[in-house]
Amino acid sequence: MRGSPIVIIPTFQYPKSKMVYDIIIIGGGPAGLTAGLYASRGGLKTLLLEKVAPGGLVTTTEKVENYPGFPEGVNGYDLAALMEKQARKFGLEIATAEVTGLIPPSVNSASRSPLPYDIKTPSQEYQGRTVIIATGTIARNLNVPNEDKFKGRGISYCATCDAPFFKNKEIIVVGGGDAALEESLFLTRFVKKISLVHRRDKLRAAKILQERASNHPKINFVWNSAIEKIIGHDKIEKVVIKNLLDNSTKEIPADGIFVFIGFIPNTDFLSAKGGSASGGKGVVELDETGYIITNEKLVTSRTGIFACGDVIAKNVRQIINACGEGAVAALNAQHYLESLG
Amino acid sequence: MRGSPIVIIPTFQYPKSKMVYDIIIIGGGPAGLTAGLYASRGGLKTLLLEKVAPGGLVTTTEKVENYPGFPEGVNGYDLAALMEKQARKFGLEIATAEVTGLIPPSVNSASRSPLPYDIKTPSQEYQGRTVIIATGTIARNLNVPNEDKFKGRGISYCATCDAPFFKNKEIIVVGGGDAALEESLFLTRFVKKISLVHRRDKLRAAKILQERASNHPKINFVWNSAIEKIIGHDKIEKVVIKNLLDNSTKEIPADGIFVFIGFIPNTDFLSAKGGSASGGKGVVELDETGYIITNEKLVTSRTGIFACGDVIAKNVRQIINACGEGAVAALNAQHYLESLG
Repeated sequence: MRGSPIVIIPTFQYPKSKMVYDIIIIGGGPAGLTAGLYASRGGLKTLLLEKVAPGGLVTTTEKVENYPGFPEGVNGYDLAALMEKQARKFGLEIATAEVTGLIPPSVNSASRSPLPYDIKTPSQEYQGRTVIIATGTIARNLNVPNEDKFKGRGISYCATCDAPFFKNKEIIVVGGGDAALEESLFLTRFVKKISLVHRRDKLRAAKILQERASNHPKINFVWNSAIEKIIGHDKIEKVVIKNLLDNSTKEIPADGIFVFIGFIPNTDFLSAKGGSASGGKGVVELDETGYIITNEKLVTSRTGIFACGDVIAKNVRQIINACGEGAVAALNAQHYLESLG
Repeated sequence: MRGSPIVIIPTFQYPKSKMVYDIIIIGGGPAGLTAGLYASRGGLKTLLLEKVAPGGLVTTTEKVENYPGFPEGVNGYDLAALMEKQARKFGLEIATAEVTGLIPPSVNSASRSPLPYDIKTPSQEYQGRTVIIATGTIARNLNVPNEDKFKGRGISYCATCDAPFFKNKEIIVVGGGDAALEESLFLTRFVKKISLVHRRDKLRAAKILQERASNHPKINFVWNSAIEKIIGHDKIEKVVIKNLLDNSTKEIPADGIFVFIGFIPNTDFLSAKGGSASGGKGVVELDETGYIITNEKLVTSRTGIFACGDVIAKNVRQIINACGEGAVAALNAQHYLESLG
């Protein structure tokens, strides 16, 4: 026999060394990916943690027409994939992990280079000298059959984004607050007819909005009702509406459904006890609805933690300004790191 | 002979009727084009006025690597052309005209729908119910031979944008303020050597920055000096430096030049008398360096006038956040118009 016998060297599992990143970004939507592009291109050691797959909410949108630079529109999934590729090209590391906790350095640290933040995930802990939170929001669901099938392909949560796709169409709007009425009034410029489905016989919206909507010839109110089922093959064809008082049902033809029953910011992991987030009690200050409060440099209430995208308190939530904020957060995190020397 | 003789009907030149736009955008860079995309796609009658050609500063950049969605990078001119095409597709009107004055409606108007703003250009006047200012900045020039030839192709005004193109290269930095030193320290992560050329023998920059720059092995100071000439065929090869004390010259090999001697916001047309802009005396409030002061909704000090992009007072000036602000300004202008009923 030639050669030596194969020697199997027993491997010893050392504890994983804790790499300290300059920046850890939590959330891989457009805001997080842009922060990652800027941070890694700027030469900072950067890790992005995303619980599902990079892209965020935008991946569920079939066609994005208002992201500048794509005159023919772009599929949401494709746009996110382009952003991910670009950020990785400059060295952004991406790991799939849900962040369950964010632990600030000891408050007693008087050092100019404070101890890093600990970021907890079910499998591993990461350490970052700065943190950028870009966890976005989730839309409240209708919880009805076929909802997932038509998300981004007939069901929309954003009139600004999708109204032009429904020119001269008949649509359903669900909700009864300011957002539902404001967006319905905006939608009247595009659509033929709106059936506004609301669970009660009164609206929560401001008086002036109620007045305008009530007087608008294109808006019809369907009171005390909820969507029971969405019907359609390739696209939405009609909707079964249930009257919540007498349980009767009726069908309304519809080409699309706009849902304005609220968004929930993904900030639960920031609360002190890991439970529901409430203003000021957790790692960073939140507003009364759970959105992160920042200043114009996108610094949160805690030095070293920045936030950007849909998860921050603001009045416009679009892909393009989420990206803009990602760049601003990353560059201000960079300035902060430089100030530490 | 068959038929009637041709009758020439004399045409009479009626005065042009003044179309009142919902939104008039001043400036056609990324911020203005994005505002135009959002406004026209939202169904608002929108006009964009640009004095040269749509695109703004970005058109002088050969390669943009940090606009999300373009993993291979994109030529600045091409990116602007894509944005213009997209905005025009939704009905944005674009006219070539330099705005020389912006006249607010009479202050005595107590109407809920105030008289529109008058926008003056040398050839014509336009009227808009709201105005979005996106006139950007111009970089102070070196005023030396070959400067125009190498702008965006070796001469840069933005380290964040262009540092990665100069890995292991020798560069010149011009300037002596905070920006020059901060950007030089950032550039040291990429380049091999920096010659920092300054007109005096003292820096205006903060002490801590001076200390760090002086101690940095990659940064060499060239005092009492200015660039006299840039030499190169397809790309910058070397630079002639003149000593301002004894008028002696020397050549320094260089692959690139970063210029940090200041930007000038294009806000002169806003001053009360059309002269130099100064804080608070013109149509909208400016900061002490001439940038427009806005709130987080990008409203200026005057109701109905919004501003976005490089021309506003802020600390990050990148294409992507200019675009984000364009969307925010347009949507808030839309909300304002809706509030007028």
